[in-house]
Amino acid sequence: MVRWEPGATDRLRVAALDLYLQQGYEQTTVGEIAKSVGLTERTFFRHFADKREVLFDAEGHLEQAFVDAVAAAPPEAAPLEVIQAALTTTAQFFGAERRSWSQKRYQVISANLPLKERELLKMASLANALAAALQRRGVPELVAALAAQTGIAVFTVAFEQWIADGETRSLVEVERELLGELKVLAAALR
Amino acid sequence: MVRWEPGATDRLRVAALDLYLQQGYEQTTVGEIAKSVGLTERTFFRHFADKREVLFDAEGHLEQAFVDAVAAAPPEAAPLEVIQAALTTTAQFFGAERRSWSQKRYQVISANLPLKERELLKMASLANALAAALQRRGVPELVAALAAQTGIAVFTVAFEQWIADGETRSLVEVERELLGELKVLAAALR
Repeated sequence: MVRWEPGATDRLRVAALDLYLQQGYEQTTVGEIAKSVGLTERTFFRHFADKREVLFDAEGHLEQAFVDAVAAAPPEAAPLEVIQAALTTTAQFFGAERRSWSQKRYQVISANLPLKERELLKMASLANALAAALQRRGVPELVAALAAQTGIAVFTVAFEQWIADGETRSLVEVERELLGELKVLAAALR
Repeated sequence: MVRWEPGATDRLRVAALDLYLQQGYEQTTVGEIAKSVGLTERTFFRHFADKREVLFDAEGHLEQAFVDAVAAAPPEAAPLEVIQAALTTTAQFFGAERRSWSQKRYQVISANLPLKERELLKMASLANALAAALQRRGVPELVAALAAQTGIAVFTVAFEQWIADGETRSLVEVERELLGELKVLAAALR
């Protein structure tokens, strides 16, 4: 039977990120992460598959939340309205209390090419999952792909703005502004 | 002095891709590629840094062409019109004679995770380059990032459609259709 450590997942996550920032991702061992919060390596592996998963384990949940929100949108919603609803729902994952963690995580990932590649793969996977979810609503394949990729474009830009120095608006506010901008930008197309 | 081999770059490129498809990317050596077109390994390395660059050497040119096209767009063009102009100009890179090569390349890349990651990195780099080029035209940072990422969304979806089985339209035609769809999709946003 696995012993329950209250909050161990979060403590490990915070400790790992601080060590990655202080001494570099490559240089940090699982043993060091566990030790820094008074846990053993064995305990670490009950929470995360490896040190990379500390940075990425939440993204599977995020993808599922996006897909569920697409399915739950009102039947009459147009494709980008569905995406907008999904962005609004999933922005809950990124509350004010998570901004500092997200900033640090972004710093760690930006400094390490394999992590950056992993992040881009996750976003590509999210785009495909969104497109498939839109198709299940009856949206034609090409339009579904376009709406999904456009949604990821908005999410990517909004997220980078949300973690920018001095930004105080919530993620959903930034997303809303960008969707408004997108409408203006697209209307100018001939 | 380097001896000139007429068409050697193209011959190596075609031969490499066929070998990657037939026997797998990992399993193919530079020696085999060169030998299959009657050239030496040494000659291969005068044309490509390594076997991966056979698949990616054109993408640096593509990024530069995108950036140049953004700079060359009429001063009064709105951000997505600039992107549209850049998509139209760069679609010249993907003529009918290149469709079969692009299909094969896509197959090879899709089957190999590190190649897929490399491709996603190149697209991320292209998005950043486009955003920077728009900023140099005076477009505000956030709008530039949004227009650039949206442009990459259109390019990605258009490209995958262009190489889909049975597609006969040119890349620029597919891009034009998608930009029209984007306008419709965005207009439905509230």
